[in-house]
Amino acid sequence: MPSAIDFYFDFSSPYGYLASEKIDDLAARYGRGVNWIPVLLGAIFKVTETIPLIQMPVKGEYYAHDFARSARFLGVPFQMPHPFPIATQNAGRAFLRLQDRDPVLAKKFAHACFRAYFTRNTNLSDMSQLTTVAAAVGIDAAELSAAVNDPALKERFRAQNEAAIARRVCGSPYFIVDNEPFWGADRLPQLEKWLQTGGF
Amino acid sequence: MPSAIDFYFDFSSPYGYLASEKIDDLAARYGRGVNWIPVLLGAIFKVTETIPLIQMPVKGEYYAHDFARSARFLGVPFQMPHPFPIATQNAGRAFLRLQDRDPVLAKKFAHACFRAYFTRNTNLSDMSQLTTVAAAVGIDAAELSAAVNDPALKERFRAQNEAAIARRVCGSPYFIVDNEPFWGADRLPQLEKWLQTGGF
Repeated sequence: MPSAIDFYFDFSSPYGYLASEKIDDLAARYGRGVNWIPVLLGAIFKVTETIPLIQMPVKGEYYAHDFARSARFLGVPFQMPHPFPIATQNAGRAFLRLQDRDPVLAKKFAHACFRAYFTRNTNLSDMSQLTTVAAAVGIDAAELSAAVNDPALKERFRAQNEAAIARRVCGSPYFIVDNEPFWGADRLPQLEKWLQTGGF
Repeated sequence: MPSAIDFYFDFSSPYGYLASEKIDDLAARYGRGVNWIPVLLGAIFKVTETIPLIQMPVKGEYYAHDFARSARFLGVPFQMPHPFPIATQNAGRAFLRLQDRDPVLAKKFAHACFRAYFTRNTNLSDMSQLTTVAAAVGIDAAELSAAVNDPALKERFRAQNEAAIARRVCGSPYFIVDNEPFWGADRLPQLEKWLQTGGF
């Protein structure tokens, strides 16, 4: 059985969201699974010495335009959220907790988070709003709160981020398949060709 | 007649080179011409507050890998040059001079420059090497030297750079068609869809 694709993303990443709507179907066409791995871009930006795309001089304006156009190009609903970006460690910790219980449920939760933020302006950094998103996929407030405040999960999420940085993950979305790295929703066609041909 | 595509590029830009091998054929399929407009990334980087891709912490290594893979993906011959990047104002000024005389010849010269640098490691910032590239497309050393040292051309190239920056050109390749901006060789599919559909 061919190895799964590692899919690194931050819940606050527009291109990460766009890729999240495509990667499982793409992988399935070539008999591959996908490991969803939430990370924090803030920590990655420290080692890459960069800032959020939207805050970059001149480029920021282009990116805002490109987020929406890339969404239309890919046929994915999109509405630019405000505030942007937001802190996503709570969503990340909750994802890890759910993954232990049921990986399918964890992905369902991740999709719900991405769609809530990028189509309905639901602020995932606000616990009451995150609770509403979680409730819609069957996770109650008590479980969510426990996950978010669990010191062991905090440490695990931190370590997962460090491991991603050690693997040279430099943005979101970032994919690694058979040791080959692909960065960006715009690299999905190259990733697909890689799966199709076994490397090119 | 639909308006031409403005194609901004730096002769030292790998993704600019990749796009240069595709843009005229792509445009022609939709009855469009292409205005080739050389710029200096160094000047653009000042306003975008950035540095060459290859020098970015962590990302630099990824980009070097991606240049070559993107070339294979697009079926374009590529060999990473050293030194990289290089100063390209001489190639840019020569391009402008040729454009006045014969736009077709100017594009031929631009292709020759890109291919020499990115497939044969010809350093375009070295006048003797640039002379060899120019000679191959019928431009003699005297004409090249006159173009490179002409104060009027220097000023025109500088003004062209300023005009590009005023249009928010933030990298290479950068395309503007019907006022819609597309940045990157990886936006060629979106640019094509734009031409196909009249905007999406």
